[in-house]
Amino acid sequence: MLKDFETKKREDKSSLNAEIKELQDKLLSQQQLLMQAKLPMIVLIEGWSASGKGTLIKELISELDPRFYHVESPKVLPEAEERYPFLYQYACSIPVNGKVTFLDSGWMENAVRKYLRHEITKDDYRKRIRQINEFERQLRDSGYVILKLFLHIDKQVQFERIRDLAEAPATEWRVDREDLWQHREYKRFMEAYDEFMDKTGNIAGWHILDGSRHKTATRDALRLIVQRIERALTEGRYEGVTSEEDFPLREMPKLKDVDLSATIKSDEYKKELKALQAKISDLHNILYRKKIPVILCYEGWDAAGKGGNIRRLTYALDPRGFDVHPIASPLPHELSRQYLWRFWTRLPKTGHICIFDRTWYGRVMVERIEGFCTENEWRRAYHEINEFERMLTDWGAVLLKFWIHIDQDTQLQRFNDRQNTPEKQWKITDEDWRNREKWDEYETAVDEMLEKTSTKNAPWHIIESNDKCYARIKTLRIIAKALEKACDNHFKRLME
Amino acid sequence: MLKDFETKKREDKSSLNAEIKELQDKLLSQQQLLMQAKLPMIVLIEGWSASGKGTLIKELISELDPRFYHVESPKVLPEAEERYPFLYQYACSIPVNGKVTFLDSGWMENAVRKYLRHEITKDDYRKRIRQINEFERQLRDSGYVILKLFLHIDKQVQFERIRDLAEAPATEWRVDREDLWQHREYKRFMEAYDEFMDKTGNIAGWHILDGSRHKTATRDALRLIVQRIERALTEGRYEGVTSEEDFPLREMPKLKDVDLSATIKSDEYKKELKALQAKISDLHNILYRKKIPVILCYEGWDAAGKGGNIRRLTYALDPRGFDVHPIASPLPHELSRQYLWRFWTRLPKTGHICIFDRTWYGRVMVERIEGFCTENEWRRAYHEINEFERMLTDWGAVLLKFWIHIDQDTQLQRFNDRQNTPEKQWKITDEDWRNREKWDEYETAVDEMLEKTSTKNAPWHIIESNDKCYARIKTLRIIAKALEKACDNHFKRLME
Repeated sequence: MLKDFETKKREDKSSLNAEIKELQDKLLSQQQLLMQAKLPMIVLIEGWSASGKGTLIKELISELDPRFYHVESPKVLPEAEERYPFLYQYACSIPVNGKVTFLDSGWMENAVRKYLRHEITKDDYRKRIRQINEFERQLRDSGYVILKLFLHIDKQVQFERIRDLAEAPATEWRVDREDLWQHREYKRFMEAYDEFMDKTGNIAGWHILDGSRHKTATRDALRLIVQRIERALTEGRYEGVTSEEDFPLREMPKLKDVDLSATIKSDEYKKELKALQAKISDLHNILYRKKIPVILCYEGWDAAGKGGNIRRLTYALDPRGFDVHPIASPLPHELSRQYLWRFWTRLPKTGHICIFDRTWYGRVMVERIEGFCTENEWRRAYHEINEFERMLTDWGAVLLKFWIHIDQDTQLQRFNDRQNTPEKQWKITDEDWRNREKWDEYETAVDEMLEKTSTKNAPWHIIESNDKCYARIKTLRIIAKALEKACDNHFKRLME
Repeated sequence: MLKDFETKKREDKSSLNAEIKELQDKLLSQQQLLMQAKLPMIVLIEGWSASGKGTLIKELISELDPRFYHVESPKVLPEAEERYPFLYQYACSIPVNGKVTFLDSGWMENAVRKYLRHEITKDDYRKRIRQINEFERQLRDSGYVILKLFLHIDKQVQFERIRDLAEAPATEWRVDREDLWQHREYKRFMEAYDEFMDKTGNIAGWHILDGSRHKTATRDALRLIVQRIERALTEGRYEGVTSEEDFPLREMPKLKDVDLSATIKSDEYKKELKALQAKISDLHNILYRKKIPVILCYEGWDAAGKGGNIRRLTYALDPRGFDVHPIASPLPHELSRQYLWRFWTRLPKTGHICIFDRTWYGRVMVERIEGFCTENEWRRAYHEINEFERMLTDWGAVLLKFWIHIDQDTQLQRFNDRQNTPEKQWKITDEDWRNREKWDEYETAVDEMLEKTSTKNAPWHIIESNDKCYARIKTLRIIAKALEKACDNHFKRLME
């Protein structure tokens, strides 16, 4: 606890320097081993204003090879200017395997400061703490080594530091209102920091460093880093198992029990398509202005009609306000990060719509079936995805998930049609035929996915698509209704 | 010319619709061929406010597969808020091979608007036009297919469109001061657009579409796109040859004539290192506040001491204000874009320092020697790089390029030392030994590089590094001097 923290005794400078040198050398040799072991590491450095975070990081990296690490200094933006989920900038900056990211303050400072500023409610704050714990656990479970340091100085030292900065012409500009405000509110901050550390120490514990003594803090930080890497190298890559928390779920039918006979008449289709597109187009305008983010997820069998379905939707949208993300196999720089990273980085900003043509659910379908991930990984994914999606809906996003469904006969018919129509041949590949042979395996996987991830906040919608026109209308109806509800409730939700 | 543009005759709606449908189908089949031919394409759509750019793009993409294209809507930021070079956001959004980027207004609108707003001087404007022509030529030369459309409406139509938007409650918010300003300044804009098109039509010609008739404009745009793709598919990937423009160059010695005997005494080194680091640290503060961007490029022989040299520099810098970019072989998503893309995307924002540990000069060294690019490509690169660097210095960046130089004996000694010292073994690979065998080839390539790219605005500095300490001091001195000059001249340059 910060309030019980005792300032360290002054140590002999030359022996401190020698220790630092020794630890830096040690770290230098560890960087190679970490790269070979392909272990990614995050060192989060939090602390008081003027506690010397920058100086500390400078010392930590001074001997390291730049290929080994990256320093990130994410910004704490006022809540009103934040266009992405709370953890977005941290999630986007996680390192690839074998590298270290030093975060020059991060999710702690962001959450605590906004809370003390009353920019977010107590309830939001609690949610953020939960999100942080989930985020850290997900990273740890997929092999990330996390070390969290807090640089502590007492009120008097902070006063002197800020005064010295403010009084020297060269550094005066570095002192901003935020620093002064924190100093005036020192006690509230200390209590909040203590509470925060208390609630976020489970996955990776906090280490408090004495910021009043730069050298000592450097030595202690280096020692912690070296020890943490040593442990990680000895223990090898950590792989998490399934988590247990239950999410409130909607009951889903088995795929085989879905009635696929629904159709729509051509003239009715045209009429309703036009009306729905007009409605969605209007709603797009409104949600753009109300800054509501929208995330639409399309999954389904090959040849189920995802593409055509998506096009009927995008035709209603202003191209400046949406993005379609077709999800193929991950590229090397995506593969060597936690698997949700490539979705984090594609999230829409508030007021925008993003459409995923295939999604993070690849983890529990193709990756599971083709063995592209371990059993632990795909089993863990249900829970990780539920958390990820809860984070998105808590953020205020409209999140809709569609399973575009057809039966095997219809698929065969469409495959043959594609094969026999020159302009459509590009749509059919050997892989499609191979996937078709694994229909049963996929059906098992999809049933399990629908069962485990149809949460109350982000339920699955099964779209019967033997008749593609019917499917399009059903999808657009669901979208229109959800967008309308979001636009209508927006004010209410803001006021909650 | 816009001023001579004649509004198109009204055409029969149903035959227009049929033509559009036919062209969309054609484009749909072309998308596959473009992907197979791995041709990247950029469709730039410029035009008046309220001319219907968004609607047009919606029609263009309505039948396309989202895997095929991407729509970008870059922002025109006020000059004072721009933290990157003028072309940055467009350069960052170029597509990979086989895909199309639709730009919903781009470099034309950006340049013309700032010029008419007097945010940039006539001279800046001329430079931007030159940069645009260079940018387009570089893209074309490396195989990009570029199509540029301008959506034209006359003043009366613009008035009606803006009025209709402004008077309907649902769209009122879409009309901003910029639109009204453009309308009031219609004549000045028209002249400026005409002049702009006149000066930027060489690489890819401009096509003016009649924006007063949505359907006609759509048909015409589709026709142009289909024709352009057809031509590109017939002609195959374009590969540019060397350009001719002379840059003012500094004379450089041949590597073999460089005297490598310089050394520095240990105590002198320590003293001066400390002084230079302190000085650079202060200057870093100043350039951060003056928002001067700094780009430092390190090239040199293996084991020449680049890493240690960079570390002595970064030790002087606040980690929040700099990035080191170690440049290795390009990743797949980098390889399938123009080769400078991965450097564009790593440029610092104003006030920041970025350090490239190896650079774009890989093109004319390792890529040349190992045959990773064609002869045309590396021969063209000297000129492309000179243009790229001129763009950076015109932007106001401090750009310094260091060739860290040693002789063959010193390299052998250091290689052996690395091989025989356990903690250093990771620094030496088989590739280093293979590169060493090609010393003569590299020397030829480096000599040619130094000769052709040591421009007046971005000269090379040869750093004698047989004595690493001497090399570090020499490098830091050059950096300190350049930063000091930039900080001192900043006001003067702003006022020019």
